[in-house]
Amino acid sequence: MKDMLGREDALTAEDARGLLLGSAVFHLPQEIELEIGHSLGRILSRDIISPEDLPAFPRSTVDGFAVTSSDTFGATESMPAYLNVTHEILMGDEPSFDLRKGECAKIATGGMLPQGADAVVMFEYCQPAAEKIIEVLKPVAPGENVIQAGEDCKKGDVVLKKGHRIRPQDIGALAGLGIIKIRVYEKPKVAIISTGDEVVPPSSPLKTGQIRDINSYNLAGLIELNGGMAIKKGIFQDNYDVLKKIIEESLRQSDIIIISGGSSVGTKDITAKLINDIGKPGVLFHGVSIKPGKPMIGAIVNGKPVFGLPGHPAAVTVCFELFIAPVLKILTGEKQGLSRKVKRTIRARLSRNISSGSGRQEYIRVLLEERDGELWAIPILGKSGLITTLVKADGTIVIPLYKTGLTQGTEVEVELF
Amino acid sequence: MKDMLGREDALTAEDARGLLLGSAVFHLPQEIELEIGHSLGRILSRDIISPEDLPAFPRSTVDGFAVTSSDTFGATESMPAYLNVTHEILMGDEPSFDLRKGECAKIATGGMLPQGADAVVMFEYCQPAAEKIIEVLKPVAPGENVIQAGEDCKKGDVVLKKGHRIRPQDIGALAGLGIIKIRVYEKPKVAIISTGDEVVPPSSPLKTGQIRDINSYNLAGLIELNGGMAIKKGIFQDNYDVLKKIIEESLRQSDIIIISGGSSVGTKDITAKLINDIGKPGVLFHGVSIKPGKPMIGAIVNGKPVFGLPGHPAAVTVCFELFIAPVLKILTGEKQGLSRKVKRTIRARLSRNISSGSGRQEYIRVLLEERDGELWAIPILGKSGLITTLVKADGTIVIPLYKTGLTQGTEVEVELF
Repeated sequence: MKDMLGREDALTAEDARGLLLGSAVFHLPQEIELEIGHSLGRILSRDIISPEDLPAFPRSTVDGFAVTSSDTFGATESMPAYLNVTHEILMGDEPSFDLRKGECAKIATGGMLPQGADAVVMFEYCQPAAEKIIEVLKPVAPGENVIQAGEDCKKGDVVLKKGHRIRPQDIGALAGLGIIKIRVYEKPKVAIISTGDEVVPPSSPLKTGQIRDINSYNLAGLIELNGGMAIKKGIFQDNYDVLKKIIEESLRQSDIIIISGGSSVGTKDITAKLINDIGKPGVLFHGVSIKPGKPMIGAIVNGKPVFGLPGHPAAVTVCFELFIAPVLKILTGEKQGLSRKVKRTIRARLSRNISSGSGRQEYIRVLLEERDGELWAIPILGKSGLITTLVKADGTIVIPLYKTGLTQGTEVEVELF
Repeated sequence: MKDMLGREDALTAEDARGLLLGSAVFHLPQEIELEIGHSLGRILSRDIISPEDLPAFPRSTVDGFAVTSSDTFGATESMPAYLNVTHEILMGDEPSFDLRKGECAKIATGGMLPQGADAVVMFEYCQPAAEKIIEVLKPVAPGENVIQAGEDCKKGDVVLKKGHRIRPQDIGALAGLGIIKIRVYEKPKVAIISTGDEVVPPSSPLKTGQIRDINSYNLAGLIELNGGMAIKKGIFQDNYDVLKKIIEESLRQSDIIIISGGSSVGTKDITAKLINDIGKPGVLFHGVSIKPGKPMIGAIVNGKPVFGLPGHPAAVTVCFELFIAPVLKILTGEKQGLSRKVKRTIRARLSRNISSGSGRQEYIRVLLEERDGELWAIPILGKSGLITTLVKADGTIVIPLYKTGLTQGTEVEVELF
């Protein structure tokens, strides 16, 4: 199919992403060793096997008296069981005695059960009968109020799997097992190469006609949020030799390369040619039927993904979420569990009509507002070259490929930033 | 109301939280200055005012020809407008000429419009007619394909508000305005005081009867996830003088104090007494009708929240989410926008019947599993003293206060970790 100007239709976003993900076997980064206290959110590069039983001994889960459960069978409030309090178990100590029939030992939560005890009666169900004698008002079953040795996990158990993202409770479990260092994947390195003869660093004085580098900073934040490590290579001239050198250097050092501002007409031929000259298979797609972000380039060079992004800030964000984030997720090494499928979306009603060119997927930035208890999505209609439209927005809605717009009041799904 | 053992009913979680949040005016931490590149996720302590117009000059948003729009009015494919290409605008340069009637200048995306030009015609709607002459096939309106000076933001505009959490696009906007350092709140400091004579650090050799410190590590992760900075004070003896000293020291250094393992019968009297001895108003509640987590202590001492948490790992997580996270959120200084109200929850069907004691809110850990395209929540029934039940779980479901259980197949809302 061709459009009115005789150009080939661009690929759909879905086809383009499929092509990208299907064109390479991505290599995960190296492993590094980290202290567990610094591992939150990192991805395990190996299974964690329990080196021992946890706990190593039977522990009480309540404050009460360690007993032989059979001594309490049949006990009631009117017919209590009488037990001699022969010992008190100190926290952190290994009891040096055996509990015999008719005896019990005072124990606190976390205390170790003595030999002969198989359950703990809570204080609440005991009464003092005489000095060193208690009445038990309720029977306990064997094992009641006790965590058995190895009940939390057993020596040799796989506690956490390779590819798991470390959560607070996982760090707790590792601490409990005495594992204080773990192996995780390094964060994938993403090189950001800025191009554009008008672009200068934010700290430079600005001449009329120049503009500061917005996109490298937005991209670095997006990379960090998605588990990568951004490497800002700097701002380079739109020049074949200059760009070839920096792309080749970045391919040696990084897992993903982003050329920002390199896919508009001014530089697109040079960027696409460069990518194809540097390695195979080269450019997979150049142009996607999305708005903003249409002129984007997706490529694989020597097994590494290379992206050419248009210079408009809103296009950068859309292209990042659609193409770069999925590749980055794979490269973090994280195994996607079910709970990872939850999107950060919210339903709202559209505050006004919006039209869209049919044949492209359009991303509209929206602000959320509560009116009379109902949530409304207010489109922020501004050029995709404006960074403040992204700043004012809470998220985006999508107008599908073959829809020409959405009417006021329609319920829409807002994907939150 | 009293229970069967003659004890007063504990507060509901909601009442306890209300008491906590209503009993103090929380003081936000100090400001610090940060480079924008390190500010992702931080909270602004001041409004950001634009120091200049962005952009500082009118820019083209497309590749094409800068024109005087009135020169193109009425142009069609059969009756094009003819324009002389008198200049080419170089990227980053300020054009030194004025565009006159009948003239146009070649311009790339991001290029600065010359005096006299008020719109840009895209290349796609132009055709070469002769050397240095183009046919324009479609009219452009004044301002079309142009970002005006100050259109992104104007000098003096509030770009970002105090209390805003910095996102990638916000960093981009700050870079665009040449703002490279910003003021944010310091992360609230949360002191973690571990108690328990049986508890040893994870790196220590373990004697029978001892257990490694799981809760400090779980808590530190939860604090970090919620925007705070954990300060592990260490493990201390259940001794009035020892604990008094360390709590007083922590009150001087930190914004929130957590005493872990300090609310069971073994230590609860000492902890509650200590808190009341140190400052006012002291203990607000001791015991909440939740499971796990019932024996928890909530207090305010000299304006700072102090928590006594039970020692069971699952109770720690529940108490943290219910009581500590809301206080921590306030102390980060973040203004809660609408999009922050989105909970990370997912609906699933319960895989089996579960019963619950009426009169308490019960938190059940669940694992998510997909069966025949349907999502099921599988309760992980294990003692709350087991850390691995939290490790195996993807989230929690809640059985409300006055329900005695849930039946298999019920649709439940799973709050994801």
